[in-house]
Amino acid sequence: MGRFPDFVQIKEVGPRDGLQNEKKWISTEDKVTWIDMLSESGVREIEYTSFVSPKMIPALSDSRKVGKQIKRNPKVMYSALVPNRKGLEYALEAEIDGASIFMSASESHNLKNINKTIDATFPVLHDVVREAKNADKRVTGYISTVFACPYEGPISPEQVLKVCDKLLESGVDDLSLGDTIGTAVPTQVELLLEELLKRYPKEKLILHFHDTRGMAIANIMTAMHYGINRFDSTVGGLGGCPYAPGAAGNVATNDVLYLLHGLGINTGIKEKKIQDAGEYIQRKLEKTLPSRSLAYLANAQ
Amino acid sequence: MGRFPDFVQIKEVGPRDGLQNEKKWISTEDKVTWIDMLSESGVREIEYTSFVSPKMIPALSDSRKVGKQIKRNPKVMYSALVPNRKGLEYALEAEIDGASIFMSASESHNLKNINKTIDATFPVLHDVVREAKNADKRVTGYISTVFACPYEGPISPEQVLKVCDKLLESGVDDLSLGDTIGTAVPTQVELLLEELLKRYPKEKLILHFHDTRGMAIANIMTAMHYGINRFDSTVGGLGGCPYAPGAAGNVATNDVLYLLHGLGINTGIKEKKIQDAGEYIQRKLEKTLPSRSLAYLANAQ
Repeated sequence: MGRFPDFVQIKEVGPRDGLQNEKKWISTEDKVTWIDMLSESGVREIEYTSFVSPKMIPALSDSRKVGKQIKRNPKVMYSALVPNRKGLEYALEAEIDGASIFMSASESHNLKNINKTIDATFPVLHDVVREAKNADKRVTGYISTVFACPYEGPISPEQVLKVCDKLLESGVDDLSLGDTIGTAVPTQVELLLEELLKRYPKEKLILHFHDTRGMAIANIMTAMHYGINRFDSTVGGLGGCPYAPGAAGNVATNDVLYLLHGLGINTGIKEKKIQDAGEYIQRKLEKTLPSRSLAYLANAQ
Repeated sequence: MGRFPDFVQIKEVGPRDGLQNEKKWISTEDKVTWIDMLSESGVREIEYTSFVSPKMIPALSDSRKVGKQIKRNPKVMYSALVPNRKGLEYALEAEIDGASIFMSASESHNLKNINKTIDATFPVLHDVVREAKNADKRVTGYISTVFACPYEGPISPEQVLKVCDKLLESGVDDLSLGDTIGTAVPTQVELLLEELLKRYPKEKLILHFHDTRGMAIANIMTAMHYGINRFDSTVGGLGGCPYAPGAAGNVATNDVLYLLHGLGINTGIKEKKIQDAGEYIQRKLEKTLPSRSLAYLANAQ
């Protein structure tokens, strides 16, 4: 195990992975204001929406409007989730910088989420990747449930490797490995990374933790010991857990920054701007978000 | 850095450090029911109250009654916080197994909290330790603000060492080092432990983290790499932060157990019992407690 990377790149996924799991409707205008706040924080990448069917994710049904209205900061890469070629079409019209495709390492979760077996998912994604690369877009492959599945339980590193191989073969630029239900502990992160890093360079890997059981910060620490320097997070810890309403969501950007800056790692991001964006969306959602640092700074006397 | 200890001993400090920071009054009857639930969880030690002046901590003003009414489990050590000889007298009448004395590594925090300089505090505590040892009680010395003080900022390991030396000379059995305002990141834990472990055996040290910024689980991981195998925590993450109402409290026993058991470390504690005790006190306090695991399990579908 090594020490830490000098620079860690955070992808802010609050406007997509965060909002898609929140019940309250946020108006297009408020979304745009909020994304513009994030654009000014110093963060290098924002996954700002999802071009899936509005029926599937009503919270993000205004993705095309949002894409038109946000103020683009040339230093920020704006990416979006796309499920298929139709979604990619919309995303390209909206002038995304990067496309994120997604599937699960677990057969049952993939079936439930995408309505296809894992093997039947690859050709669909392969098409999307080819089109996106033709359009000169960066493509990230999300793999959900890399540690455990809500239906199947533990997922073996072999299952994850199989999906990684296929996605990399299809031409994705990098892989974001999701602890979708937030059950991993640091030894599981070690186990998976040891297998993955035998096969792929660390530059290909992003880790995407949910904080459902409060392990995410410790898991990020562990991943950094393996040289991983890219993580996904959401402002305020937005997002919740579809399997336990009231539980925590993605690891909070606020808390990740507190850790990284405390360790002397550069991120380029201003904590104050993330605090402001967190307080803003917390007000709009009319609920207390899970981030510890957000709560502390919002209430400090 | 090593791997992990086989067994980790948790001291449940919810009834003391947790409740003392909660505004809502919990009836004696409910406190007793709750402490009895904790006594049946498998936890080896419970700090069940504080014998400080009821004016200082009204929430625990019924400490003598609580001590009389709880059902003692012979496998559990029942300890209590005592500020001075008067407090110790009450605690001995209440048949405590262990006494916890306390002071700060920071001069300003000590003044604010105890109304004495650090140097003027030692003789008072020395008296208490002598009396407690005469009565054949185990004595733990809490040292607050070992990483940072809300008034002074960062605290140097040298300041902490000075207080540790004096307390150990006075005859305390062990020291519980408190990240009172929950600001430490893992590298600070490393720095302090490296200094302390040059001087004292690891068996003398307990770590006491607050989760104000969400770093506690990562800090516990780090401390375990140094062989530390005793931690204080509160059911549900009870406790809050006196400097930021609404912020998180002590690290949650629930989340610590999730980590430890996930790493294959034995604690002797049943998670289900801690979940039940957490849900019980959450209902009585009529608020959502900060523990991630508590929230997940209370809402899992």
